[in-house]
Amino acid sequence: MSPATPLHILREVQRGALTPEAAVGLLRPVTDLGYARIDDHRAARTGLAEVIYGEGKTPEQIAGILEHLVSAGQPALATRVSPEKAAAARALLPGATYEPVPRLLWAAPEGHRAFAPTQEGKVCVISGGTADLPVAEEAARCAEWFGLEVERAWDVGVSGLHRLLSRLDGLTDARVIIAVAGMEGALPSVVAGLVRAPIIAVPTSQGYGVHLGGLAPLLTMLDSCAAGVSVVNIDNGFGAALVAWRMVARR
Amino acid sequence: MSPATPLHILREVQRGALTPEAAVGLLRPVTDLGYARIDDHRAARTGLAEVIYGEGKTPEQIAGILEHLVSAGQPALATRVSPEKAAAARALLPGATYEPVPRLLWAAPEGHRAFAPTQEGKVCVISGGTADLPVAEEAARCAEWFGLEVERAWDVGVSGLHRLLSRLDGLTDARVIIAVAGMEGALPSVVAGLVRAPIIAVPTSQGYGVHLGGLAPLLTMLDSCAAGVSVVNIDNGFGAALVAWRMVARR
Amino acid sequence: MSPATPLHILREVQRGALTPEAAVGLLRPVTDLGYARIDDHRAARTGLAEVIYGEGKTPEQIAGILEHLVSAGQPALATRVSPEKAAAARALLPGATYEPVPRLLWAAPEGHRAFAPTQEGKVCVISGGTADLPVAEEAARCAEWFGLEVERAWDVGVSGLHRLLSRLDGLTDARVIIAVAGMEGALPSVVAGLVRAPIIAVPTSQGYGVHLGGLAPLLTMLDSCAAGVSVVNIDNGFGAALVAWRMVARR
Amino acid sequence: MSPATPLHILREVQRGALTPEAAVGLLRPVTDLGYARIDDHRAARTGLAEVIYGEGKTPEQIAGILEHLVSAGQPALATRVSPEKAAAARALLPGATYEPVPRLLWAAPEGHRAFAPTQEGKVCVISGGTADLPVAEEAARCAEWFGLEVERAWDVGVSGLHRLLSRLDGLTDARVIIAVAGMEGALPSVVAGLVRAPIIAVPTSQGYGVHLGGLAPLLTMLDSCAAGVSVVNIDNGFGAALVAWRMVARR
Amino acid sequence: MSPATPLHILREVQRGALTPEAAVGLLRPVTDLGYARIDDHRAARTGLAEVIYGEGKTPEQIAGILEHLVSAGQPALATRVSPEKAAAARALLPGATYEPVPRLLWAAPEGHRAFAPTQEGKVCVISGGTADLPVAEEAARCAEWFGLEVERAWDVGVSGLHRLLSRLDGLTDARVIIAVAGMEGALPSVVAGLVRAPIIAVPTSQGYGVHLGGLAPLLTMLDSCAAGVSVVNIDNGFGAALVAWRMVARR
Amino acid sequence: MSPATPLHILREVQRGALTPEAAVGLLRPVTDLGYARIDDHRAARTGLAEVIYGEGKTPEQIAGILEHLVSAGQPALATRVSPEKAAAARALLPGATYEPVPRLLWAAPEGHRAFAPTQEGKVCVISGGTADLPVAEEAARCAEWFGLEVERAWDVGVSGLHRLLSRLDGLTDARVIIAVAGMEGALPSVVAGLVRAPIIAVPTSQGYGVHLGGLAPLLTMLDSCAAGVSVVNIDNGFGAALVAWRMVARR
Amino acid sequence: MSPATPLHILREVQRGALTPEAAVGLLRPVTDLGYARIDDHRAARTGLAEVIYGEGKTPEQIAGILEHLVSAGQPALATRVSPEKAAAARALLPGATYEPVPRLLWAAPEGHRAFAPTQEGKVCVISGGTADLPVAEEAARCAEWFGLEVERAWDVGVSGLHRLLSRLDGLTDARVIIAVAGMEGALPSVVAGLVRAPIIAVPTSQGYGVHLGGLAPLLTMLDSCAAGVSVVNIDNGFGAALVAWRMVARR
Amino acid sequence: MSPATPLHILREVQRGALTPEAAVGLLRPVTDLGYARIDDHRAARTGLAEVIYGEGKTPEQIAGILEHLVSAGQPALATRVSPEKAAAARALLPGATYEPVPRLLWAAPEGHRAFAPTQEGKVCVISGGTADLPVAEEAARCAEWFGLEVERAWDVGVSGLHRLLSRLDGLTDARVIIAVAGMEGALPSVVAGLVRAPIIAVPTSQGYGVHLGGLAPLLTMLDSCAAGVSVVNIDNGFGAALVAWRMVARR
Repeated sequence: MSPATPLHILREVQRGALTPEAAVGLLRPVTDLGYARIDDHRAARTGLAEVIYGEGKTPEQIAGILEHLVSAGQPALATRVSPEKAAAARALLPGATYEPVPRLLWAAPEGHRAFAPTQEGKVCVISGGTADLPVAEEAARCAEWFGLEVERAWDVGVSGLHRLLSRLDGLTDARVIIAVAGMEGALPSVVAGLVRAPIIAVPTSQGYGVHLGGLAPLLTMLDSCAAGVSVVNIDNGFGAALVAWRMVARR
Repeated sequence: MSPATPLHILREVQRGALTPEAAVGLLRPVTDLGYARIDDHRAARTGLAEVIYGEGKTPEQIAGILEHLVSAGQPALATRVSPEKAAAARALLPGATYEPVPRLLWAAPEGHRAFAPTQEGKVCVISGGTADLPVAEEAARCAEWFGLEVERAWDVGVSGLHRLLSRLDGLTDARVIIAVAGMEGALPSVVAGLVRAPIIAVPTSQGYGVHLGGLAPLLTMLDSCAAGVSVVNIDNGFGAALVAWRMVARR
Repeated sequence: MSPATPLHILREVQRGALTPEAAVGLLRPVTDLGYARIDDHRAARTGLAEVIYGEGKTPEQIAGILEHLVSAGQPALATRVSPEKAAAARALLPGATYEPVPRLLWAAPEGHRAFAPTQEGKVCVISGGTADLPVAEEAARCAEWFGLEVERAWDVGVSGLHRLLSRLDGLTDARVIIAVAGMEGALPSVVAGLVRAPIIAVPTSQGYGVHLGGLAPLLTMLDSCAAGVSVVNIDNGFGAALVAWRMVARR
Repeated sequence: MSPATPLHILREVQRGALTPEAAVGLLRPVTDLGYARIDDHRAARTGLAEVIYGEGKTPEQIAGILEHLVSAGQPALATRVSPEKAAAARALLPGATYEPVPRLLWAAPEGHRAFAPTQEGKVCVISGGTADLPVAEEAARCAEWFGLEVERAWDVGVSGLHRLLSRLDGLTDARVIIAVAGMEGALPSVVAGLVRAPIIAVPTSQGYGVHLGGLAPLLTMLDSCAAGVSVVNIDNGFGAALVAWRMVARR
Repeated sequence: MSPATPLHILREVQRGALTPEAAVGLLRPVTDLGYARIDDHRAARTGLAEVIYGEGKTPEQIAGILEHLVSAGQPALATRVSPEKAAAARALLPGATYEPVPRLLWAAPEGHRAFAPTQEGKVCVISGGTADLPVAEEAARCAEWFGLEVERAWDVGVSGLHRLLSRLDGLTDARVIIAVAGMEGALPSVVAGLVRAPIIAVPTSQGYGVHLGGLAPLLTMLDSCAAGVSVVNIDNGFGAALVAWRMVARR
Repeated sequence: MSPATPLHILREVQRGALTPEAAVGLLRPVTDLGYARIDDHRAARTGLAEVIYGEGKTPEQIAGILEHLVSAGQPALATRVSPEKAAAARALLPGATYEPVPRLLWAAPEGHRAFAPTQEGKVCVISGGTADLPVAEEAARCAEWFGLEVERAWDVGVSGLHRLLSRLDGLTDARVIIAVAGMEGALPSVVAGLVRAPIIAVPTSQGYGVHLGGLAPLLTMLDSCAAGVSVVNIDNGFGAALVAWRMVARR
Repeated sequence: MSPATPLHILREVQRGALTPEAAVGLLRPVTDLGYARIDDHRAARTGLAEVIYGEGKTPEQIAGILEHLVSAGQPALATRVSPEKAAAARALLPGATYEPVPRLLWAAPEGHRAFAPTQEGKVCVISGGTADLPVAEEAARCAEWFGLEVERAWDVGVSGLHRLLSRLDGLTDARVIIAVAGMEGALPSVVAGLVRAPIIAVPTSQGYGVHLGGLAPLLTMLDSCAAGVSVVNIDNGFGAALVAWRMVARR
Repeated sequence: MSPATPLHILREVQRGALTPEAAVGLLRPVTDLGYARIDDHRAARTGLAEVIYGEGKTPEQIAGILEHLVSAGQPALATRVSPEKAAAARALLPGATYEPVPRLLWAAPEGHRAFAPTQEGKVCVISGGTADLPVAEEAARCAEWFGLEVERAWDVGVSGLHRLLSRLDGLTDARVIIAVAGMEGALPSVVAGLVRAPIIAVPTSQGYGVHLGGLAPLLTMLDSCAAGVSVVNIDNGFGAALVAWRMVARR
C-alpha cells in the first residue's frame, strides 16, 4: 500500500470511514520505545526503512530497535557499530550478523534474502587507498543492502594514474560512482573528467597533519573544478549509498 | 560519433589506419587560444560541452571562447558574468544574450534551439528565501540549458512550514530536487524526510554574523540527519544543475 | 480569532462545514508576490506579523511587501535597510518612515499607533561602547515596535565598572536584559552575576584583530561562566528583541 | 531577607548601626575552602544557590563543597560528574544521590523536598535523537531542581516531521521550550515557526565528520531564520535550565 | 589627590562629612555626552586618562569627546583616525593636531607640553619591515604621549640577521622592548634570546596568503619558544604602549 | 662575570689574549648531550638558567639534563612533568623533588636555597576558578623559583564580583598581576579597569563546548577593551612567570 | 669576491689589518634609507640581490629603493605592484619597466641584460586555469629574472587529463616544475605521479565558496599523497621562482 | 631500462612487436594483493620504489606488501609504524628491521646494501628542539634510504642563536637543507637568510596551546619573509626526504 496522503485521509473522514480522532492518529505513526521513537511509516513515505545510527547508542538500545523492526517483519541494519558494541548486542540478539570491516550489524526476518539485488543499474564504488577501505565497504555494503548491484575498485588513487585508468571500463558503464578518498581527496575530480555518471564523493578522515580529520579532502571535493560531483559528510559511506539508491531506484 | 577509446585508437594503429604520430595527436584534442586551452573532446567524453566559468576572466577572454565554440557549431554558456563584464563582452559579440538574475551569458549557432527540453524527468528547484534567488535561478536556468524540464518553488523556507507543505505535490513527482538555502540551511533536511527523490543541496552565501559566507548552511547540509542529501559548493547553482543532468540523462 | 488547529479543521470537515479541498487550502495560507511568498497566518500562529529582512532584497521588493501588508491592515517593519535602499523604497512608498541609526524602515495603516507599549514588563537594553549603538538601537526600537517598554543604558562596558554599577537600579527591576557588546564581549558575564533577569546577549562586529568579525565576543558570551545568559547571532538586535517579546508577552 | 543594597549598608553606617570595618566586610560574603571561594550571598542576589561545575574538580573538592553547602542548610547540586568521580565522592558523602544519565550528583538537608515544583509555568524539553538524551536530561532534571514543571519529548527530529507534529499540543502551551539537537541542529528553526514560546536552543556534540564537536548545530541555531530562538553553549543543558528559570521565576 | 578608596568614603560618611546619597554619587564619576559616558575618574584610578578609540565613531563624536576632556584640563588623544575623519574632526576642533603615519589625532590644554618625557627608563620599539611602520609608529608615539622615552629601530627583520644584530646595543639597555612584526612574526623569538628586557610582541596585519590578517604572526608570537614574550592584539600599537607604561611608570 | 660581548671578544683578540680559533669557540657555548644541546651561556646573556620543557622528552632525558645542570652548580627546573614521568625520573635522580599540582620537577646543588625571594616587588597571581589551579600554581611556583615574592588569590571569577573586590587591596599594591582564567576569560578585562599594574593574562584550557581548548578566553584577552593587558599562550603559567621576572628583575 | 666569513674577519683583526671597530662594522652591512634598511650584503651571502615586496609600500618608497640599488650597479625588481602604484613610481623613475600581468616593476643599470638565461636546467611552469595566469606569470617571469630558462604550459587542469598528458614531454625533461593551481588544487598530485623532477606547488586564491581564499588548494597540496611535492604560500609565484633558483643554481 | 613512453609503445604496436591487447596491458602495471594495488612501474617512472604509509594498515598488510616487494627483488620501507605494529609485522616477516625513533620498518633482498650513499651532494637535516627528533630522524633516515649523504644538527632552535651559528659551516656547503621545527617554527626563516641552499621546511606537531597540532609553525613557514623556503605537511619527514632526493638525484 502506498502511504496515505493528507488529502486521502481527509476524504476518508468526509465519507465517515475515519473519525477525526483516528485521522489525527494517522499523522502520528510512531512507536515509542522509551529511548527512541521509531518512525514506522518512513519506509512508506520515502521508500526505505529507518537505518539505525549506532554511535551514541548503547548495545541494549541497538539490539532493542533491531528486534522491534525484525519482529515487525522488516530487515534492519545498524551502522557504525564497534566490535565491542556488536558483541554485546549479539549477546542479546543472537540472530544478528556483524561485518567488522564496514562495522555493520544487521538482522532480518526468517526467509528474507538480505542483500539481494532488486534494482537495475550498477553502482561503482572506488577508493583511493587501503586505509579508506572501511568507509568504502560501508558504502558498498549499504548499497547492496538497499538492493543495488555494486562493483568495487580499491586503491586507485591519483598518484598512480595507471591504476585508475586500468579500471576505466568498469567506471564507464556505471549508473552512479561513489568515490571514496582521504589524503588530498583528488580522486573525484579526475574521475569526473573521464566518465558521464554522477559522482558521489566521500571524503575520509584518513590522513595527517593539515588533513584536519577529513576537512581537507572535503574542501577539495566541494571545490572540484570537474563537472558532476556532489559530496556527503566525512566518512559517510552509508549516506553515499542512500543517495545512490535515490538516484537509481524506480518509483 | 562516440568518443574513441584508447583501445579503438590502438586498433586503428595496428591495422595501419593511423600512424603513431597521429594517434598521439588524438590523445591531445585541445585548441589553444593562448589564454585558454579548450578541451574540444570533453563533450564527446562526458556528454556536455565545456561551460565557461566567468570569474577571473576578462570580457575579451569570455567573448573569445564563446565565439570559438559557436563557430565550431556548439552552443556556449558562461556563468558568473557580472553586468559590467557582460556589457563589455556583448560589445565584442553582439549575438550573445545576457540574463541578469542568474548572471548568465550565452550564445548559440544559427538555428539552434537553446534551452529546449531534451530529457525526460522533471527537476524541481526550491529555495528558502528571496535573497537566494540568483543562485536558485542559476541552477534552474543551467538545468534548462542542459535540456532538463524544470519546476521552480521559491521562498519555501522552514520557518513557515505551511509554505513548503503547500508545494509538496510538485516535489513528490520530481526525479531530482535541487534545494537552495542560505541562513541556517535546514531546508534539505526537512524536504528529504518528505519525498523519495535525491536532494542536491546548494548552500548560499546569504546570511550574516556567524553565517561565515555560507559555511554555516554548508555544514548543516553535510551534517543532515535526513537520508538522500548530497551537497555542492556554496552558491554553486551551475554545479547542482550539472549533477542533476548526470542523474537524469540517458546514456 | 486564534489560529485553527488541525483537529479543529478536521472536525469542520466531519460536520460538513468544510470540504476536503477547502481544508487542504487552509493549510496553505500564503500570498505569492512572485519574488516572495508571504505567510499571512504567521501572526495568528506565533503572535507577531512577519518582519522583513532587508538585506539581499531590492528596494522594489521591500516597498512591495510593506505595501501588501499595510494594505492588509497590518503595520510592517523592514530591518537592515541601508540609507540608499531606504530612499529608493520611500520614493515608491512615501508613507514609510526611515530611522537611520537602527536602519529600520516601517509603515502602518492610518490610525495605527506604532511603537505604543502594549505589554507589561520593562526590557532593559545596555551596550558596551559607542560603536555598538546601531545594534543596540535596533534591539531597543524593535522591542518598542513589538509593544514592549524599553529602558536604555549606553556605554557601560566592563573596563570602567563604575559606569555599569551606576545603572544597577534600572537593571534590577527589568523583566529581561538585552546586553549588546563588541570587543571582548564580557558585559553579559558581569551583569548576570549582579541581577536576576534573563540576559539575552548580542555580540557585535565592532572590534579588530582577532575579533574575527564578532566571533570573539560570541564565544565569550557562549562560554560565560555566569548563570542565565543566552545568545543570538552577531549584530542581531532584531532577534534579541523578538526573544524578549516571547518571554514577556501574554498569551 | 532580601540582600542588603550598598545604599542600605551606607545608611546603617550613617546611623551608627554598622562600623565602616564591618560594612566593608559585608561586601565580601565569601567562604574560603582553600581550593574554592564560595559566594554565600549569590542565592540572595540572584535567587539561586551556586551550582558546582564538576569537571576539573577532584571528588574530594566536589564532596567538600556539597557538604559545606548542605551543612549551611542549602540543597546542593554538582553537574558533569562522571560515574567514577561520583562513586568516589559518595564514599566521602554517603548522603549524596547520583543520577547517571544526566550525570548529576546532589545532596540536600534533612527534610528538604528536592525537585519539588515551586514555580508556575511548564517548561517543555524536546530532543532530536536518542544520542542527545544525556544533555536533554541534564536540562530537564536541572529545571526540576530549580522548581520548574517539566514536560519531556524525546526523539522528535526534523527528518521525520510527523514525530514532531504529534507532540504539538504539548509545545503550544509551554511557557518556555528547551530544544536540544545534535547533527545539523535544525529542530529549533522548525519549532519556532510553529509556536509562540521562547526557544532556548542547546546544540549537542553528537554527530561526526564536519559536525566539529557541535559547532555545526551551534551555527545552525545562531543563524536560524526563525523568530524567537536564543542559544546556549554546546551540551550546556544546565545553562538552558537556568535561563528558563530566569524567564519563569517570580521575583 | 589620590583616588578615594571605598573605605575612605565610608569613613567620611561615618564622621558625617558625607551623606550616604553623596557617597553613592562618588561611586558614579561619569559624564554623559549622550553618545558616550566618559569615565572621569579613570585617570585617578589607573594613572592614565581615557584614550579614545577612533574606529566606529563619527568625527563629531571624536571632536566632542576631545573637546570635553581638553576643556576639563586634560590632554586627549584619539587613535585609529583615518585622514578623512581627522579632517572632518579638525574642522570642528581646529586646535587638534593630526599625525598621518600613526593615524593619531590629539589636543591639549594651553601650556601643556604633550609628548614630554616624564618617566625614567627607555622603551625600544623595533619593527620587521617597512609595511609595519604605521603600527610601530602608533606604539612609539603613544608611548611618548604617556611620557616614556622611546628609541626606534625599523626594518630589522630576521631574514637578514645582520640588520638586527647591528642594533643590539640599543636593545640591551632598554627597560622594555616592543617588537612589531607582520609576515611570519619571528622577530620577538629571536630578540628574546638576545636580551633581558620583557618583550611586548605586536603582530601586524601585513602579509598575504595564509597570513590570515595577522593571525599567523599572532600564533607565532604566542607559541614562541623564547622566554619573556607576551602579546597584544593584531595591529594594537596603542595597547603595547600602554602595557609598557604600566611596566615602567612609578606608582 | 657578565657575558662577553662580541666587541669585548674582538678586543681580546686584538691584544693577543685570545686566538681567533678560541674566539670563534666563545661564540659556541653549547654542551651536547646527544639528545639535547644545552645553552650554557643563556643564564649569563638573559639572566636566567634554561628551564626544561618536560613534554615530548623521556624521563631519561629530563633526569639527564637536570643532573648536568646541577653538577655544573646550577639549580634546575623541569615543567609539565606528568606524575608517571616524574616517578621514573626520580628513580634515576633521587635528589629531585616533584610538586604534583603545578607538575614541576626540580633539583638544586647542595646548600642552594631554592625558591628564596631575591627580588623586590610583589607579583599577584589570581585565578578565575578551581579548575584553573594547576596553571595558576605553575605561574606562582615558577615566579617563586625565579626569586619573586608571590601573593595568591584563587577563585575570584567575574560571575561573583564581590569575591574579586574583596581582594582589591592585594591587587592594588602588586608590581605585576598574573591573571589566569578559563571559561570566557573576562577576568583580566575587569581587573585592568581597577588597578595600575601591568596584567599578564593566561588563558586556560578549562571549559567546554565552543571553548575550543582555550582559544575562546585567549581571544577575549587579546580583544580586551581594558588598558594594560598582554597575553601568553594557553596554559602557559611558566611563560607568564618569566615575563613577570623580566619586568621586575634588577639588571 | 665571496662574502667574508666571521673567521676571516677575525683573522684580519689578529694580523692588524682590521681594527675591532671596523670589524664590528663589517657585521652591519646595511644602508638606511629612513623608511627601509637595505641589506647590501645579502646578494653576497645568499647569491641573489634583495627583491622588493611592493605591497604596503608607497610608490615613493618603491622608486627610492629601486633607484638606490640601480645606482649601486644592481638590477632591481619589485613584485606585487598594482598598475596605479606602478604609474606613480614610473613618474619618479622613468627608466623602470612595468609588466601588468605578473604585476612586476623593474629597473637595471645601463648595459645590463635583464632576464638573460645564466643557469643551466629548464624550469617548467604549469597552471590549472586561465584565472591562475597572473600568479603563474609571476613565477615564470621571476625565474627568468634570476637567469633560469623557463617553459610555460597554461590551462592544463586535471578535469581534462588529455590537456595535461599532451604536455608530458616538456614536463619530463624539466629540472624543476612549478605547478600553479586554484580551485581544488589537484594538479601537483597528478603531475608528481608522472615525472621525476621536484614539484613546487603554488596554490592560488582563485575559486569561490569554501575555497577560503586559497586555503583549500593549499591543504590539498600539503596533503598530497604523491611524492616530491613541496609548497609555498598562496599566490606566491615569486617565492616559487626563488626556491627553483636555489635548486638549480651553481654554487 | 628506462620506462616505456606511450609513443614507444605505440611504435612497438605499429611494427608488430606488440599486440594492442598487450599494449593496453602495459598501461596497467599493477599487482593486486586484494587489500592493495601495487604500482610496480612507479620505480621506473619516477625513480623510486613505492614506500608504504604504515598508518591505517594492519600488520598483516604491511608485512604482505614488504614481502611482495622484497620477493620481487626490491628493498622496501614502511613509515609511521608503531612499535606494537612493528612487532606484529616482524613476527610474520622476521627478516624485517625496525628503527624505533623514526618509526621505520624495512626489509631488503639478500645482498642489498640498504642505506648506502649512491648520490653526490650532502643533505643537512636540522631540528629546533629535542621533541622534534622523531620527525627529524624520519627525514634523515629516509634520505639515507634513498641513497643521499646526510649531516644532522639537532636542537639548534632560534631562542639560542649561538647554537645555530656554531653549525653554520655545515649548513653552508649542503646541497639541500631540511629544517624541522615545532613551537613557533621560526628556524627556516632564520636559516634561509644565512645560506644559499634550498630549505625544505617541516613543521612538527610538538607544541601546546594555540600551536593547533602544528598548524602554527606551518603558517609561520608558509609566511616566511625569507627567500627559498618551501614547505611539506606537518610531521612529514618522509615527504621532505623525497623532495630532497628529487632535487639532488641524477636523471
